[in-house]
Amino acid sequence: MSEHGAIPGQAQWGPPYLLYLGQAADNLAIKTARGLAYWRPEWCIAQHRHPDCRFTLGLPEMGFAEARAAGADTMVIGTANAGGVMAAETVADTVAALDAGLNVIAGLHQKLRDNADIVAAARRNGRVLFDAREPVGPLPVGSGRKRTGHRLLTVGTDCSVGKMYTSLALERSMRKRGLKADFRATGQTGIFVAGGGIPVDSVIADFISGAAEAISPARDDGGWDLIEGQGSLFHPSYAGVSLGLLHGSQPDALVLCHEPTRAHMRGLPDFPIPDLQQCLDANLVAARLTNPAVKAVGIALNTSGLDQHEALAACREISRRLGLPCQDPVSMGVEAIVDNLLACCAN
Amino acid sequence: MSEHGAIPGQAQWGPPYLLYLGQAADNLAIKTARGLAYWRPEWCIAQHRHPDCRFTLGLPEMGFAEARAAGADTMVIGTANAGGVMAAETVADTVAALDAGLNVIAGLHQKLRDNADIVAAARRNGRVLFDAREPVGPLPVGSGRKRTGHRLLTVGTDCSVGKMYTSLALERSMRKRGLKADFRATGQTGIFVAGGGIPVDSVIADFISGAAEAISPARDDGGWDLIEGQGSLFHPSYAGVSLGLLHGSQPDALVLCHEPTRAHMRGLPDFPIPDLQQCLDANLVAARLTNPAVKAVGIALNTSGLDQHEALAACREISRRLGLPCQDPVSMGVEAIVDNLLACCAN
Repeated sequence: MSEHGAIPGQAQWGPPYLLYLGQAADNLAIKTARGLAYWRPEWCIAQHRHPDCRFTLGLPEMGFAEARAAGADTMVIGTANAGGVMAAETVADTVAALDAGLNVIAGLHQKLRDNADIVAAARRNGRVLFDAREPVGPLPVGSGRKRTGHRLLTVGTDCSVGKMYTSLALERSMRKRGLKADFRATGQTGIFVAGGGIPVDSVIADFISGAAEAISPARDDGGWDLIEGQGSLFHPSYAGVSLGLLHGSQPDALVLCHEPTRAHMRGLPDFPIPDLQQCLDANLVAARLTNPAVKAVGIALNTSGLDQHEALAACREISRRLGLPCQDPVSMGVEAIVDNLLACCAN
Repeated sequence: MSEHGAIPGQAQWGPPYLLYLGQAADNLAIKTARGLAYWRPEWCIAQHRHPDCRFTLGLPEMGFAEARAAGADTMVIGTANAGGVMAAETVADTVAALDAGLNVIAGLHQKLRDNADIVAAARRNGRVLFDAREPVGPLPVGSGRKRTGHRLLTVGTDCSVGKMYTSLALERSMRKRGLKADFRATGQTGIFVAGGGIPVDSVIADFISGAAEAISPARDDGGWDLIEGQGSLFHPSYAGVSLGLLHGSQPDALVLCHEPTRAHMRGLPDFPIPDLQQCLDANLVAARLTNPAVKAVGIALNTSGLDQHEALAACREISRRLGLPCQDPVSMGVEAIVDNLLACCAN
C-alpha cells in the first residue's frame, strides 16, 4: 500500500475505494477524493454523489451496496468543510455505507467515532472506522535541534493551492531520476495517498513543530523528505499551523505554491492574496530561525483556471520576476524545479 | 471570584488555595503558583513543598490535611514542565491531597482526569478535578473579520518573560484611571487568576486564531481587552501559537515583553534571544495582516535578575533605542506605557 511507512489501522482498511462526494458544492470541497483519484487511480473504483452534486471525478457512479458488490472495501469521505463539521446527511450516508458492508475512513475534524449512530453501525456490521485527522500517539514538543538529512517544504500563498500535488510531483520526478525521495504527509488526503503521516492542523497547538519534526526525522542516506505544507503565513485562520510546520521542517529548500486566478484568501473575501515575492520572503525569513541556509528553489503554479497559452505566459512572467523556475506540476511537470533544487542544494 | 466572566466548574472549586510546588527545580517551573500568590494573595493561604524544593513563595508551609484544616478548599498544581508531563510523585501527592479533602486544579497538558488513580481518589472523596488546559467547548475557525473594540496584546522575545504580569499590571493601572479594561487569559495561570479564558496552547492547531477571537469578542463600550500573549515568534517550539494568537487578537497595540538576562531561548541553548527591534518589527508585520493600524506602545522589561541601578539603566537604554516607554511592570509600574497607549490609540 505504501513504499515508505505504515499508517495506523492499515491492516484493517484499505483499497479498493469508493469515493464519497455527497453534495460537494464547490471544486475545492472534493479535494481529498480528487487527490486520491489522481495519485492512486488504481485504488479508486467508483464515486458516490447526491443528485445535486455538480462535480464528478469521472469514475463509475455507484450506490453503497453496488460498490461493495463491485469489490470496494472502504468508503473515503472526501468532502472537507471549513472547521470540519459533518452534515446530518453525511452521517446518514456513512451509516448506510457501513450497513452495506464498507469500512469508512474520513479526515474531518469531527470524528466518525464521536458519532454514536456511526459507531453503532460500524459495530453491528463488524466494519472499521478510521479518522485521518486523529493525531498519532503522544508527540514531543519541537526541539528546533538541527538534524541530518535534506528536506523540502511546499509553502503557499493560500490554502488549497496545490502544496500536496507539488510535493507528490516532486517525489515522482526525483524517484524517476533514481534519487531517494519520500513524500511526508501532513493532511488527510496526503495520509490516504501516502499511507502515513500526521495531520498537523489537528495536533494540539503546542506540538505543531514537534509533529513536523516527527514526520521528517533525521536521515543520512542522502535522500530528501518532501514535506506537504499546510495553509499560508498570510491566511489569518491557519497561519499558526503554517509557521509551526515551517519551523519544525527545518527545510533546506522551499517551493512556493500559488493559484493565479484566486481573487481572495480562501473563505475570506476581505483578505487579498499576498504578493508572491512578499510571501516567499516572509517564509524565508521565518524558516531561517531553524535553518539559516534555507533557499527558495521554485514556484509551483496551479494553472487549472487558465488556458494553455495563459498558463505558459503566467509561468514565464513569474519566473522572470522572481528569478526562479515556475511550472504547473500537473500540466508541465516539475523537472526545472528539481534541476534547480539539485543545483542549489546538492552536497 | 472574578469581575469579568465565569470559568467552567467555578461553582465547584475555588479559593482558599493551597499552592503545590513539589520539587520545582527552577524559578520558572513555579510560575503558576507565583502568579497566583502575586495577583491574588488573599486567596493563597499556604504552600506545599518537597524537602529538596529550592524555591518558596514565602507562604506558610503545610501538609495536605493541615491545609484543609486551615481552611484550604483547593490545591493548585503550579509546576509547569515542558510538554506538561506529570511526574509519578505529583500523581501520588494529588491522590494524597484528594484523600485529605481538597479539590485539585492543574494546568498540565497531561490531564488529571486521564489518570485513573487520581480520578478514583476524587470519586471516593467526592472532590472536584479541574484541568485548566482543557479547551472550552467547540471553537470556531478564526475569521479574521474586523471587530469593534480596543485590544492590546502582550508579545515576547521568549516564553516566560512576563506577558501575563504585564497584561495584569496594565489592567490594574487602567482600572485605577477609571477606564474599562479586562485581562483576557490564554494560559493556565491567567485562567486561575482571571476566573476565565481559553488555554490557547492547548487548542487544536486549526483553531488557534479562532480561540483568540473567542476570548476577545467585539465590544463597543470604549473599553480595552488586554490579551495575555504566549510564547514568541522566535521560539521554534511554540511560534505557531504566538502567530495564531497575534492574528486572532487583531491588536490595536502591542507591548513587547523581555527578560534582559536570558542567555538563550527557554529550553534551547542553541537559540539566541532575538534583537528587540527585530522581534518587535516581526510582530508588527505579522499583526498587520488582521489590523493594519497596529502600533507598538511600550516595552515591559522583567528586571528581576538585575539590581535597581542596572534595571533603570536597562530601561533607559531600551527606551532610547526603540523610541518607546520601557518599564518593569512589577518594580516600576506601567504608567508611562499606559500614557503612551492612550496617546497613540485614543479615539
